[in-house]
Order: sequence, then C-alpha cells, then structure tokens
Amino acid sequence: MQQNMALNVDLGARSYPIMIGSGLLRQGGLLDPYVEGRDVLIVTNDQLVSLYLQPAEALVTGSRVESLVLPEGESAKTLDTLKLIFDALVAHRFGRDCVLIALGGGVIGDITGFAAATWQRGVDFIQVPTTLLAQVDSAVGGKTAVNHPGGKNLIGAFHQPLCVVSDMDTLNSLPERELGAGLAEVIKYGLLGDAEFFAWLESEHQGLLQRDKERLQHVVRRSCEIKAEIVAADERERGRRALLNLGHTFGHAIERCAGYGEWLHGEAIAAGMCMAAAFSQRLGWLDAEQVERARSLIARMQLPVEPPAVPPADFLAAMSLDKKVIAGQIRLVLLRAIGEAEVTADYPEHELVDFLSEQFVR
Amino acid sequence: MQQNMALNVDLGARSYPIMIGSGLLRQGGLLDPYVEGRDVLIVTNDQLVSLYLQPAEALVTGSRVESLVLPEGESAKTLDTLKLIFDALVAHRFGRDCVLIALGGGVIGDITGFAAATWQRGVDFIQVPTTLLAQVDSAVGGKTAVNHPGGKNLIGAFHQPLCVVSDMDTLNSLPERELGAGLAEVIKYGLLGDAEFFAWLESEHQGLLQRDKERLQHVVRRSCEIKAEIVAADERERGRRALLNLGHTFGHAIERCAGYGEWLHGEAIAAGMCMAAAFSQRLGWLDAEQVERARSLIARMQLPVEPPAVPPADFLAAMSLDKKVIAGQIRLVLLRAIGEAEVTADYPEHELVDFLSEQFVR
Repeated sequence: MQQNMALNVDLGARSYPIMIGSGLLRQGGLLDPYVEGRDVLIVTNDQLVSLYLQPAEALVTGSRVESLVLPEGESAKTLDTLKLIFDALVAHRFGRDCVLIALGGGVIGDITGFAAATWQRGVDFIQVPTTLLAQVDSAVGGKTAVNHPGGKNLIGAFHQPLCVVSDMDTLNSLPERELGAGLAEVIKYGLLGDAEFFAWLESEHQGLLQRDKERLQHVVRRSCEIKAEIVAADERERGRRALLNLGHTFGHAIERCAGYGEWLHGEAIAAGMCMAAAFSQRLGWLDAEQVERARSLIARMQLPVEPPAVPPADFLAAMSLDKKVIAGQIRLVLLRAIGEAEVTADYPEHELVDFLSEQFVR
Repeated sequence: MQQNMALNVDLGARSYPIMIGSGLLRQGGLLDPYVEGRDVLIVTNDQLVSLYLQPAEALVTGSRVESLVLPEGESAKTLDTLKLIFDALVAHRFGRDCVLIALGGGVIGDITGFAAATWQRGVDFIQVPTTLLAQVDSAVGGKTAVNHPGGKNLIGAFHQPLCVVSDMDTLNSLPERELGAGLAEVIKYGLLGDAEFFAWLESEHQGLLQRDKERLQHVVRRSCEIKAEIVAADERERGRRALLNLGHTFGHAIERCAGYGEWLHGEAIAAGMCMAAAFSQRLGWLDAEQVERARSLIARMQLPVEPPAVPPADFLAAMSLDKKVIAGQIRLVLLRAIGEAEVTADYPEHELVDFLSEQFVR
C-alpha cells in the first residue's frame, strides 16, 4: 500500500498542501493546525451527511463546528443555493475569521469555495473532496463558481483553499457512474501533458475500474501533480492553465444542450475530449491512430464517446456561450499528440461548423 | 476654476487613475483607451438614465455598448438584482473580455463592481460615480459588495476598476440629502487622518453646502488622495485600511436597526462618527472640546448627530453582525484626536454596553 502523502501547490503566500491517503477522515484533529480554534461551518449534501459528517466534524477539535446540508446534484449549484450558505453564516453569526469546509464532490466544493470567496469579501476554506472527480480536479486549483441558466460556472472567483484532504476510502461508496466521471478527468491529464501516464492508464484500466486502492491513489497523486504544476505557473488562467480545459468547451456545450444534471460533468468531458481529438484530426494536427487510442481508452473506462443528438446550430450556440470565447472566436484546446495539447483560436471557422454538422448527422 | 486632473491609485499591476474635473462626461471617446474596442455594458439606475446614459455611452466609441437600468436605492443592492446583471451579460452573449461601466452612486458601483468581480471569475470594470459619496469613497479602493438581509456588504469581493471618472457637473443634480451624505464621508477623512483638512472644512462648510464647484473639487481630490494612500498601503484591509471604517460599525448598526434605505449610508456614518467620538471620550482618548468640534461640524453640514431610538441590546446585536468582529470582540475605529484614528478591540466590553445604554436613554 502506498503511504499517505502530501503534495504542495506552490502559489507563494497562497501555497497549500494536498493530503492524499487512506484513513485521513479517521484522524481526529487533523485539521486543527489549519483551523486554529476559529468557527467552522461544514457544508455537505443530503447524500453524504450520514456517511461522512461525523468523521469530518472530528477532524476539528476545540472549535465551534456547525454544519449545513444542501440538496445533492449539479442542479443545486445556483445563486439560490449559495444564499443558503450565507443564511447559515448569518444565523450562526460567523465573522470574518470563520473557516468553511467543503465536504463532498465538485458541486459542494465549487459552491462552498465561492461562498468563502465572497462572504465578507473572503474567508478561509478547506476542501475535503469525496469523489474522484473532485479529488483529481475541482478541489485543486482555486476555481470556485456557481452556474447560471445561461451556462456552467459563469459566476465565480479564484479562491485558494487552506488545504485539501483526499481520503481514498471515500471512493468505496462512490456510484459507478461517478467513478467513471472522475476517470475522464484523469484521462484528460494524460492526454494534455503526460503520454507515459496515458499509457499507464491504458494498461491499468481494469484495476482502476475495480477500485484498486493503490492504483487510485497513484491516479490522484499524478493528476494533482500535473494540475498543481500548471496552476502554479498560471493561477488565473491567462495562458497555460487553459490547457486544463481540454474537452471542456465541447463538454460544457453537451451539458448545456442535454440540460444540467442529465450528463455527469465527467461524462460530458469524456465525449468532449473525443470531439476535440476528432477536430484536431480534421485540422491535420493528430493522426487517426492516436484519435483511436484516446477514444478507445475512454470507451474502456465505460464513458461516452459521442455527444447527444443536438441540432448543430444549437450546439455551436452553446459552445459560444463558453467562457473561452475571446472577441467572438471560440478558443479550443486541441491535441498535437497524446500528451501534447495546445490552446488555439486560430482555425477556419467554417471547419468547426462543418465538423459539427458531420458529428450530429448520424 | 481648478483644472481637471488625475490622481493615481498605486497598486502595482492593478494601479489606476481617478479623473476628477468638470465636463468629463462631455468628452466623447474619453474611455476608449481603457475599453480598447471590447464589448461594454453600462449599468445605471432608473433615476439617472435620462440624465447621464447618453453622455456615458458617448465616452466609448468603436465598441458595442449595451445598457441595463436597475431600480434605484439601497434596497436594490441584493443578490437578486445582481442576477439581473448576469442575465443581461448572458442575453448579450458577453464573454470574458467585456467591460462593465458603473454609472451612478455607491449602490450601482458596488453591485456592478461585484458583478465584474464574479462574472466569468472576473472581468474589467470602470467607475463613473455620480454622487459625492461615491466620488469620495465607494468608487475608489476596489471594495465591491451586495447586502444580505443579515447585514450590509456581507457578500462581496475586492476588485479594482480600470479607472474612475468623477465629473463635478453630476453633483448639480444631486438631492440635498445625498450631498450631505457625501460630506459625511469627507468629514471622516479629516477626522481620521488630516486635522488641517478638517479645519478647512470647518471654515468652508457654507461654500460646500452651496455646491461651489472649486471647493467640491478640492474635497473630492483631497478625499481620494487620503483614501488612495491608505488603500495602496493595505489593499485587502489587513490593517491600516480599517481606519476608513471610522463611524461605520456604529453606522452600519444604525442602518440595520432603522431598516436599509431609511437612513442614507452617509447619514448613518455621520451619527456613527459622533458615537465613535463620544465613546472615545468615555475611554479617555479624546477631550470634550474635540468631540464637540466633530459634532458641531457634522451638525452644520445638516447631518444627524444622534442615532435613532433603538433598544440598546438590539443595537449591540446589530453591531456584532458587522464584518469587523474578530473572534467575538467588536473592533472599533476610535479617535485619539481630530486627525488621528486607531483601530482597537482592546476596551472593556462593559464600557460599550454601558455607553449604549446611556446613548439610547434620552
């Protein structure tokens, strides 16, 4: 079994550790050095409360600890749900020195982080991700947000946590679909920046689907390393950080067209990466064999490789609502090779229009 | 007549100019160097639209300019109104490279700034303050926020504008009460950091109430200088910036107890400063003559010197909801002398309780 370990996200004064291991949620007082006696509000959802709230409360000793249970699911990631967090903070009379703990998946992490970013113009928070997707992606890097009916994550802030606690044991209870959704983001890291890791995933995909703990821990560690390195170089996504959006412009459009919550985020990203690979091939960036390798690994992880049937014009409109539009041109993350991605808005617009027409005539 | 001039707020990469003068809103294209052809959304309110929207639109040439008209008043400074801004940005399909312009008083500036801070995790914005209060205070320094039913400005972010345009001519149309509310913040700058400026206000208060443009421009310039210097030294209010809250912990409690919108913010601050001066005297910090000078200038500016009648326990509860509570103790800005303020949580708690009991038995 791999040892519990901590990675560091290097952001100067805002640096923080990611603790990765088994049994972390059983270590009473683990968060005391971060909380330092301040008031704590744990935010979680109605699916997780019976599983993890008690152990999470025990991570903090010697502080006042309150909790708030939100409804589960992407449809709860709204300004209205955000208000519930503010209401709780007011009800408990928590001041500027309180600490929020996000106990849950990406939705809980994003909304709790955004509440922390904006409550009294910014208070501290801690991420305790309980899904693979949150452990490898959303809990790391400081992006926080809620959705707007017009698009995902349109309202948000950059706000780094004090620390991240990723307990592998929480993955035991994860529904199969959500495990897969996390593996989609893991594949993304291989595709965008580490061909060797991608090859490792090809050979180990069975063990991962069977939730072998050692393999899962390797996956979380390597994913966090790649993400932490990119975030450290470009915290506010002026450049290189945009690589992390591989599959996301297509993927967000899938989520938008299908209706939030129909597709899991990771599932949409999986099909979105297949689209990004196919479009890269169309532009002559990537050869057919590599496209097939990407598609095949995604399929073997039991993830979708095709978008839902949508009129191409609607899909294009949904894509252009994405945050990655600069002066009207949709920026895409495309592949030069497995392990090598590039951000570009430099492609003939008609190619994208034609590509979408072909994709959706099936 | 004083020349139009620009001050600089020195915040490294986030530095920006404050343009102060007459006729600025008649200078077509004035904002072009800041907007650089990007999409613009002007946010204003229903009282200002007929007066200033057209000239504000003309400040930008060669860009797409849209506008959004919000209801007037402090009661509109909510998450629900904020949503209207996001809805407009989605409806116009504005991307991450858009620019918001806040055309109005403190409410418009705060809510538009907060929308800019959080739309797509942060877009640029410009302040065009049309009230004295906004010109001397809220448009400068990067604090943005909306209110929560539990307290003022509880939800917000630090987000600096690209520039501030303060046109003295907009003060012509200002209702008398609002002029006074702005002068309250001006008096605050004298009290907290510039005894000479305070003495100048004592001698010039007549001219200011008569809206003499030269005197008003001096007041805006000197207030912005004092604020810019403090903000440059402490952008995120870790220390010295808290001095700017002189009168605000008492004042916010007045607003909260009276119901938002009953008292103008500046009126509440005026009475709040009188309370801060009186409490400073009680602690032996300030002598009776200086308390009387503060109170007298505030009264001569036609501002309230007494809080509304409220049960002392309710007032204390309202004060402790303020952001300036650290670990349960209410931090206050108190006066050592006219021109010298200090932040403290180091006073016997019963003194505050007794003080409030006496204040409200009249």
